Amino acid sequence: MTDDHDDYVSAGYTGALEPGRRAALVVVDPVNAYVDPACGLYAGVEEPVERMRELTAAARAARVHVAVTTMALSADGSNAGVFFRKVPALAAYLPGTSTGAFIEGLAPVDGDTLVPKQYPSAFFGTSLAADLVARGVDTLFIAGLSTSGCIRATATDAMQHGFVPIVVREAVGDRLPSVHEANLFDIQAKIGEVWGIDRVLALWSAA
Amino acid sequence: MTDDHDDYVSAGYTGALEPGRRAALVVVDPVNAYVDPACGLYAGVEEPVERMRELTAAARAARVHVAVTTMALSADGSNAGVFFRKVPALAAYLPGTSTGAFIEGLAPVDGDTLVPKQYPSAFFGTSLAADLVARGVDTLFIAGLSTSGCIRATATDAMQHGFVPIVVREAVGDRLPSVHEANLFDIQAKIGEVWGIDRVLALWSAA
Amino acid sequence: MTDDHDDYVSAGYTGALEPGRRAALVVVDPVNAYVDPACGLYAGVEEPVERMRELTAAARAARVHVAVTTMALSADGSNAGVFFRKVPALAAYLPGTSTGAFIEGLAPVDGDTLVPKQYPSAFFGTSLAADLVARGVDTLFIAGLSTSGCIRATATDAMQHGFVPIVVREAVGDRLPSVHEANLFDIQAKIGEVWGIDRVLALWSAA
Amino acid sequence: MTDDHDDYVSAGYTGALEPGRRAALVVVDPVNAYVDPACGLYAGVEEPVERMRELTAAARAARVHVAVTTMALSADGSNAGVFFRKVPALAAYLPGTSTGAFIEGLAPVDGDTLVPKQYPSAFFGTSLAADLVARGVDTLFIAGLSTSGCIRATATDAMQHGFVPIVVREAVGDRLPSVHEANLFDIQAKIGEVWGIDRVLALWSAA
Repeated sequence: MTDDHDDYVSAGYTGALEPGRRAALVVVDPVNAYVDPACGLYAGVEEPVERMRELTAAARAARVHVAVTTMALSADGSNAGVFFRKVPALAAYLPGTSTGAFIEGLAPVDGDTLVPKQYPSAFFGTSLAADLVARGVDTLFIAGLSTSGCIRATATDAMQHGFVPIVVREAVGDRLPSVHEANLFDIQAKIGEVWGIDRVLALWSAA
Repeated sequence: MTDDHDDYVSAGYTGALEPGRRAALVVVDPVNAYVDPACGLYAGVEEPVERMRELTAAARAARVHVAVTTMALSADGSNAGVFFRKVPALAAYLPGTSTGAFIEGLAPVDGDTLVPKQYPSAFFGTSLAADLVARGVDTLFIAGLSTSGCIRATATDAMQHGFVPIVVREAVGDRLPSVHEANLFDIQAKIGEVWGIDRVLALWSAA
Repeated sequence: MTDDHDDYVSAGYTGALEPGRRAALVVVDPVNAYVDPACGLYAGVEEPVERMRELTAAARAARVHVAVTTMALSADGSNAGVFFRKVPALAAYLPGTSTGAFIEGLAPVDGDTLVPKQYPSAFFGTSLAADLVARGVDTLFIAGLSTSGCIRATATDAMQHGFVPIVVREAVGDRLPSVHEANLFDIQAKIGEVWGIDRVLALWSAA
Repeated sequence: MTDDHDDYVSAGYTGALEPGRRAALVVVDPVNAYVDPACGLYAGVEEPVERMRELTAAARAARVHVAVTTMALSADGSNAGVFFRKVPALAAYLPGTSTGAFIEGLAPVDGDTLVPKQYPSAFFGTSLAADLVARGVDTLFIAGLSTSGCIRATATDAMQHGFVPIVVREAVGDRLPSVHEANLFDIQAKIGEVWGIDRVLALWSAA
């Protein structure tokens, strides 16, 4: 997409955001559905999941606040309104399913913020923005699943709420590589920053 | 993208939303910047603009409520926070610029809702959702610019707020066809519906 | 407060809202803390609690959708940000406390919407508004605790989001009668309607 | 209200919030309606208005960011939804009225954030929270009109969004002293802080 990138730069899509003074990490919907080959939501994201584990460990070591989201559905899914009607595959998140449980090693721990949600964005219909403001956070690193859905929506809302959003490239994933890349392109072009995980780890280890 | 589509359907991304009992139309950011070849934001969207004119005329004839958004920036753009820092090209919307003025024939008229905004989504930081609820609207047709930015963000938020979002394919546009199509694919797959304009016009003329 | 009322009417605070075509009932924070004399939050609201039971039974009989809220706090309360710092008495809601459990007969049942929240308003940081929109609701009856806190904030937000808010006088309560009455006065004057429970029951039994 | 205060303190309503590291000042709806004896909204608030002038001058001298709100209504008021139906007196804010114009000396100046709104809260349906986050603000001083309406709603939302709300006692006002005092009592008890203006001026002059 080099030519596309050049086109955007020449048009004035040139801003590069920098991390502020206090960051948090949000891990979006790290549940079994995406790594269970028997589930419709299976996305072959074993590699990104490994990177999420690495990233959360590094965040905690650097005392970067961690928030973890999950879809919290009622028994009939009706509390997720239009989203549940549009995506019947969300049944993988219904209460009591193994597919809706956190992937081993990615459940929130004491001190993290658990963010139950009903929609793609980690901010929509949740108190995540208030939580970040109350903690003095101005920068949000974003990992989790999936790039074209919850990650894109979360990055957009992070920016809209006034936080610098930084999506960690290797720690997000999607079922189709083309869709994954198209969304990272849009995010970098006009929503926030896309960083490699090494850059994030280097920043935090230096802190 | 036939194969991609099949992959999604087999995974359970199969929901088809239907219009409810009362619809509104939102036209997102129909300003000169996108049709002024001298402007960085120029997107070659003369055709979609023509469809927007057709669509708003049909909406008014069918007594479908119309909302029109625009970016309302302070002189230094700072009221658009992180978005203005990320996309310096938004300077095209600064007060007093011709590029920030409505395209001829697409300014709101008496009875429309004018929605000044500072971010991509027509819902974020605006009272659009409240306006629609107070009018008894449950379905939102979406036109305007651009597909990968404000249209995608507006469709996502419409769905999240509980409205059925229907993006009108020929009445939205973007600078790059590949980006335009990739975003329509994502919208249809998991956010809302993408309808051809003929289907919309037929629905409204039958009303 | 007859004189005060007359003063408001002469000033133009004269609007009387009417129920729309579809109502829901929200019961705000019906937890033991308010009826446990050993708890700091105890408010002597045994009578209003009885009315809440009557009201929810009538709502279900009339197929009026019911939502029930509660404060969902992390172990250290930090996910409620500034609210938890301001009101240490909120410790009554910490996980595992009996004071934070639903009052007998007022827990949500199958088909209700459970609304976990961290702030006074049932709308803030929750997806309640989206839930109501997706269900086609335009009118919100409000019961629960307490009048000056969560009820006032919920009524204000219901109105702001575009719903007609109707507070059920006998089914809300507060620790001090003066504070209870002052808030009902403000709500009636400029936020929504305050109805006696008999009027609500008559409406629903006629439906 | 000494006894009431003691009752609250013994119940655990004891939190005292402190200003954080960066403050802003919001002046809510400082328009002629409230000081024009011919207008229904007239509230006899000439003294508080004088204090608002003093406060905004001090804020600017101390480089505290200033935001100023006003009601931005469409010609028929319908963009303010249920609020406009409930309070016909809001007609004082209709476009072109002198009552809806800023009081002399209280209009926003270059560098301030102008916040057009349609509802009581300065946060609801506006991008004020995002604006404050993007500027690194964590504390919000609140002045303007009126105590029981927009001030109460703004203080509640400031707290909910994660900001420390500090209402400046002499720089807010209402049509009835009893209503004014009852709302300051509630704000201090469970929403935020109520400070005398001297304390604010001393803080800023020391900065």
